[in-house]
Amino acid sequence: MNPNDRVVLAYSGGVDTTACIPYLRHEMGCKFIVAMAVDLGQGEELDEIQEKALIAGADVSIIVDAKQRFVEEYGLPALKANALYDNHYPLSSALGRPLIGQLLVECAKNYRCGAVAHGCTGKGNDQVRLDLTVALLDPSLKIYAPARVWPFSRADSIAYSEKYGIEPHVTKEKPWAIDLNVLGRNVEAGSIEDLSWETTEEVWSLTQSPQQAPDEPEYISIGFHQGVPASLNGEFLAPLSLFSQLNIVAGKHGIGRVDMIENRVVGVKSRELYEVPAMQLLLLAHREIEQLTLPADLLAVKANLEAVYSKQVYDGLWFSPLKSAIDQFIHTTQATVSGEIKLKLYKGSAYIVGRSAEHSMYVHELITYGQNCTFNQNSAEGFIDLFGLPSRVWSSVNHSQKCEDKD
Amino acid sequence: MNPNDRVVLAYSGGVDTTACIPYLRHEMGCKFIVAMAVDLGQGEELDEIQEKALIAGADVSIIVDAKQRFVEEYGLPALKANALYDNHYPLSSALGRPLIGQLLVECAKNYRCGAVAHGCTGKGNDQVRLDLTVALLDPSLKIYAPARVWPFSRADSIAYSEKYGIEPHVTKEKPWAIDLNVLGRNVEAGSIEDLSWETTEEVWSLTQSPQQAPDEPEYISIGFHQGVPASLNGEFLAPLSLFSQLNIVAGKHGIGRVDMIENRVVGVKSRELYEVPAMQLLLLAHREIEQLTLPADLLAVKANLEAVYSKQVYDGLWFSPLKSAIDQFIHTTQATVSGEIKLKLYKGSAYIVGRSAEHSMYVHELITYGQNCTFNQNSAEGFIDLFGLPSRVWSSVNHSQKCEDKD
Amino acid sequence: MNPNDRVVLAYSGGVDTTACIPYLRHEMGCKFIVAMAVDLGQGEELDEIQEKALIAGADVSIIVDAKQRFVEEYGLPALKANALYDNHYPLSSALGRPLIGQLLVECAKNYRCGAVAHGCTGKGNDQVRLDLTVALLDPSLKIYAPARVWPFSRADSIAYSEKYGIEPHVTKEKPWAIDLNVLGRNVEAGSIEDLSWETTEEVWSLTQSPQQAPDEPEYISIGFHQGVPASLNGEFLAPLSLFSQLNIVAGKHGIGRVDMIENRVVGVKSRELYEVPAMQLLLLAHREIEQLTLPADLLAVKANLEAVYSKQVYDGLWFSPLKSAIDQFIHTTQATVSGEIKLKLYKGSAYIVGRSAEHSMYVHELITYGQNCTFNQNSAEGFIDLFGLPSRVWSSVNHSQKCEDKD
Amino acid sequence: MNPNDRVVLAYSGGVDTTACIPYLRHEMGCKFIVAMAVDLGQGEELDEIQEKALIAGADVSIIVDAKQRFVEEYGLPALKANALYDNHYPLSSALGRPLIGQLLVECAKNYRCGAVAHGCTGKGNDQVRLDLTVALLDPSLKIYAPARVWPFSRADSIAYSEKYGIEPHVTKEKPWAIDLNVLGRNVEAGSIEDLSWETTEEVWSLTQSPQQAPDEPEYISIGFHQGVPASLNGEFLAPLSLFSQLNIVAGKHGIGRVDMIENRVVGVKSRELYEVPAMQLLLLAHREIEQLTLPADLLAVKANLEAVYSKQVYDGLWFSPLKSAIDQFIHTTQATVSGEIKLKLYKGSAYIVGRSAEHSMYVHELITYGQNCTFNQNSAEGFIDLFGLPSRVWSSVNHSQKCEDKD
Repeated sequence: MNPNDRVVLAYSGGVDTTACIPYLRHEMGCKFIVAMAVDLGQGEELDEIQEKALIAGADVSIIVDAKQRFVEEYGLPALKANALYDNHYPLSSALGRPLIGQLLVECAKNYRCGAVAHGCTGKGNDQVRLDLTVALLDPSLKIYAPARVWPFSRADSIAYSEKYGIEPHVTKEKPWAIDLNVLGRNVEAGSIEDLSWETTEEVWSLTQSPQQAPDEPEYISIGFHQGVPASLNGEFLAPLSLFSQLNIVAGKHGIGRVDMIENRVVGVKSRELYEVPAMQLLLLAHREIEQLTLPADLLAVKANLEAVYSKQVYDGLWFSPLKSAIDQFIHTTQATVSGEIKLKLYKGSAYIVGRSAEHSMYVHELITYGQNCTFNQNSAEGFIDLFGLPSRVWSSVNHSQKCEDKD
Repeated sequence: MNPNDRVVLAYSGGVDTTACIPYLRHEMGCKFIVAMAVDLGQGEELDEIQEKALIAGADVSIIVDAKQRFVEEYGLPALKANALYDNHYPLSSALGRPLIGQLLVECAKNYRCGAVAHGCTGKGNDQVRLDLTVALLDPSLKIYAPARVWPFSRADSIAYSEKYGIEPHVTKEKPWAIDLNVLGRNVEAGSIEDLSWETTEEVWSLTQSPQQAPDEPEYISIGFHQGVPASLNGEFLAPLSLFSQLNIVAGKHGIGRVDMIENRVVGVKSRELYEVPAMQLLLLAHREIEQLTLPADLLAVKANLEAVYSKQVYDGLWFSPLKSAIDQFIHTTQATVSGEIKLKLYKGSAYIVGRSAEHSMYVHELITYGQNCTFNQNSAEGFIDLFGLPSRVWSSVNHSQKCEDKD
Repeated sequence: MNPNDRVVLAYSGGVDTTACIPYLRHEMGCKFIVAMAVDLGQGEELDEIQEKALIAGADVSIIVDAKQRFVEEYGLPALKANALYDNHYPLSSALGRPLIGQLLVECAKNYRCGAVAHGCTGKGNDQVRLDLTVALLDPSLKIYAPARVWPFSRADSIAYSEKYGIEPHVTKEKPWAIDLNVLGRNVEAGSIEDLSWETTEEVWSLTQSPQQAPDEPEYISIGFHQGVPASLNGEFLAPLSLFSQLNIVAGKHGIGRVDMIENRVVGVKSRELYEVPAMQLLLLAHREIEQLTLPADLLAVKANLEAVYSKQVYDGLWFSPLKSAIDQFIHTTQATVSGEIKLKLYKGSAYIVGRSAEHSMYVHELITYGQNCTFNQNSAEGFIDLFGLPSRVWSSVNHSQKCEDKD
Repeated sequence: MNPNDRVVLAYSGGVDTTACIPYLRHEMGCKFIVAMAVDLGQGEELDEIQEKALIAGADVSIIVDAKQRFVEEYGLPALKANALYDNHYPLSSALGRPLIGQLLVECAKNYRCGAVAHGCTGKGNDQVRLDLTVALLDPSLKIYAPARVWPFSRADSIAYSEKYGIEPHVTKEKPWAIDLNVLGRNVEAGSIEDLSWETTEEVWSLTQSPQQAPDEPEYISIGFHQGVPASLNGEFLAPLSLFSQLNIVAGKHGIGRVDMIENRVVGVKSRELYEVPAMQLLLLAHREIEQLTLPADLLAVKANLEAVYSKQVYDGLWFSPLKSAIDQFIHTTQATVSGEIKLKLYKGSAYIVGRSAEHSMYVHELITYGQNCTFNQNSAEGFIDLFGLPSRVWSSVNHSQKCEDKD
């Protein structure tokens, strides 16, 4: 069998990816189809999904539990990079795509497939992310994207599936498109497309409304070791547990809602809702530890790289050489980023109320207005003299020029 | 009289600047002293201050009401630049210094003085800002900074003043150092220097505690015209009124508190508290209008320049050629930044609940998953083909290399 | 007549654009065709070209002499921006496309055309530049690109033209693709595609071989006023004259050859040859005047923007809002960039041998090791104390950490 | 003995550092003085220098041959970073200071000294570099800088030395200040301070005048392995040999002269001459290999970091955490930067005349205008459609605004 006739499909159990199975076989000539469902924490019953793929005609149907790998290999590096696309989006969904792509490539190798497939349409970011991940990891793999080329509406997809004897177990169409994993939840489309629509509670799921959140604040503390969140309230936790617990506690206090305008890879602006309770808290706390432990010049350059990093990840370039090089920069900076941040959670917001760090660059003796100050005030005059020298020179030599300008 | 013997002193009425008056005359040889107090909205009784300067020996004592100029010439450009130093500080106090410096230079010209003076010590940022402002505007002016060179403690300053018959109207020393103007309030020193100290209510003044804030959210809307906030709840307001009203409404809901670690010009980290209710709301709303109306590539470059701009302003380089050039970049970008942002204020946070913009780049027909979509899905494949081409090439030519790495 | 049936074609007189004329009429339904040839200094006989278009079936054939506009509105701003794509390419050809696009839009308005057309293929940068220029200036215009969609080889194009009675005046096919204008000359394809091929003299035209260049060096001086080259050897010259004369004098000495690897918009690397004698000299001299007259922090930020600017121009985004904002930044910086640079031209290289500037920030009294030095050495210790403070703090607090690392 | 009374002095054998020895003992209270001379390739007779230190009163006098370490640990990383300060200076002298500082710290440990010393004055960059290196490596060490605090002219230094029975072996004062090491040579002061002075041949030493250089070009080839120059004309060479040989061959052809305006750490502009034959060739060749092997987005971000890196090194921050993190970024990028560059050397210039690279991203099949082209032209339309979409949207929504502007 031609290896290109053997394909691994990233399978979600939905109407479209289900229709992809007969489409790959009957319209695109695939002869051996592996349906691979990946558990990133979407909270669905995967046994049913596994069964559904076989009914739809897959030769093999597998489930990969990738939750721990997702948090450790994707969530943690993104946190160290303070990754925040367009100032607001911690990339929760975007981080899942390169992992699914990576699993497609690994699975293709295992099953000697020469092709991979996904059910993304041509309008979103995910097609770009999956295609680029596969291209970066194994450019020899052929990529099928049936839903990008077929002319089907949703009703057409259902009809097409039924033609092949598949009942796609159609649930009532939800008013929004939803993507959920352990790093967060994304909701888009429907009434969200109306920019003047204030969200209502049914669109949110992981977070309490700030108004419904407890009337009493809650204090928590998060400990970091070399940039990695390692403990919650003094208890050491593996990353997956820590993210899961933080999602609950932050969500309870209404923390983690994002309602934003986003610049898509494909050149359009969209409105997106995200719920990212754990990530939002962790980003706040991680930045604060960095602010305490890293020098200002490093923080400034790192901030520029973080923006590039976030865009690379958003654009699907997780495995690019640029993103890899930035990862090395960031990794190097985290050696001293250890300490404890105390947070107060209350009705939609988290406030930093205490910080400590083993290698804190905040030195009380230098800063205090008290008597034990070790800062050498006498240095100030010399410092200002030279720090200001280019300004004085510039001003001197351009004085006449400025006067002329005014005349 | 030698022009260098004629000096304008930036006068605040405090113990230290009061002691500067006899010090300039008796220790530094000044023969004609103009005390200039600037009203930036610090809410003090300036008549008393004016009188105090004369008692302390000033030849002339003047008050300059600069509140409107401060908001319009300093606050608004900073807002267009989304200026936020170290990610948190909207530069409320830092913006006041170049204006005071500018007024010193203007006043020196009016009174034919060849020197200016200020009462800053050698440890903070303000000395740098005043010195650099004067250097950039008129490098021929001599700068006296008595408090940077004298060896006085606070008690010494009082004693020194009394020696010259001045009762410096000593108030009970406050436990913190406070700076207030119409753009915000800064508190530092004292217990704030202890990083594990959670602030208590007496340290805050412009903002309600989130817990004490109203239980009912309040909706407001802010209108922008070409980057400038122009209306509140549909009513057109001059900038000074708008800032003043927003400070009250946001403060009431506990919005605008900042508790941060900051990187000072002089190379140390400090902890600072700020209350910036109006600025925080306006920055949130202004960024949202920009996100709607400006293309992604422009936003990315502007963000980099904003960080440079914020540092320039923080460092006292308001009148530098670099900062001026960035101002022109920013000014050019604001031509289409007009629209209305609806905000919900509730217990410490503001949420964007509606946006509209005359020149919005959010185009519903391109983004909708509905039937009237005008986005050309067929373009996606070609786009990804070329957008991903460097990745595919890189991956192809380095495949053997990567394999070697693993061996 | 439907406005979309009226089209302006950017016409070069070559085989492909000539075939576009019948193609637009017979295959694409255009009913009124204006052929517009633009003189950017390519040194061809434009009368012949004008006639050729009519023979090929154009309803109107016009020539636009845009040489002066090209130098003044495109060349000069690019020079102020020190525009150099991929470190080597002064964008000579790339700068011509937005002007042609702008002329297409202007001409379309004059002739009430609803469409424009060009003869670019799908592989290069120029299609992107023309399409984006038109999109940015008038997005309502339809764009036809026959050569991007037809399946013709060069022989097919000729045959197709002959079918409509046009003898496309076929010249012997050159071994390279050439583009020439007053800012420079580009050669690509053919043997250039072989990276191990050392160029031979027949590929170059504007420049002497360094080995054939005069054995005697020649001295010239270039005067700048506010960033604009204004004089050559003390004689004031209009920009077009100055560029033309400099092309000759620099070319005579073998200056201005570029042989480079370039990153195309469409994601591939190519090898390109350029001859840019005037631009290379002017960039060298302009940078030197800037180095003398602008402060270091401004130069650093400007350099970053120059790279963005060069990429925007290369990518066809001359009229983008980002590029426009950078133009304003740059314009602001040039107010003091005036002075004279003396150059020695010799066998392929130009050496700066003298500089002077009205607003030079090089201050001899500050720098001299002689006796009249005004630099305050005493300031150095204070400066280093505070400039180095973050380093000392970082080192102190991380000493134990570094020790641990080694164990 | 108090450890602070034991000091290691960076000793050069010159008048000033010689005077430092008695000054440290008699004016600064040092009781045990180690004079450490470092051989970086300055080509002086170090035995004499060693002797001179003992005569001047040093308790111990040592010579450290650090040439190999200098090239390998300092020169090569700088090359990978394409380090070029102010666009022209390959940091040859600047790279030597952190190594001397590092050796001071190592030597202080060996001899149980609590202090180090150097003979730099307060006007240059070197004092900053040595002080910061020591601060970063061991902030507990005290730093003495006699020549920064004493009030001596050169004549005074000699007189002071003679008072302690030292004949400082005064050579006729050279008209310039010279610094030489294996990476290059720096000349400053004297007639160089006159910006209109064209250099004459006596100021240069490592390079032939272009006019005196051979009339026949010479071809050489340089091979790189993972960013490191590894061979010359096919012969594998250790880095120190390769630099030494390249200095000779490039110098013979007049390559490597730099005559520039430089922005010093301490805020002034100076004019500097450098001779960097090997570094200039290597930078040219290394960049070319990178241009062939690295994707465009990576090159753009690396270029920004290179500028930061160069400034960090220039400013003496070789051991800063920021510079270390950039090193990791750069190191990661070099894995595929291998290949061969063929250069033609002729009368002051080097021309690239051939390139090949194992992992070249230049793919002939994609770029050729010949028949075997594999580039998919059909992708271009889709690519431009989406690449240009933000431009079209921006233009559409701002059309009325632009029209208004014109009215």
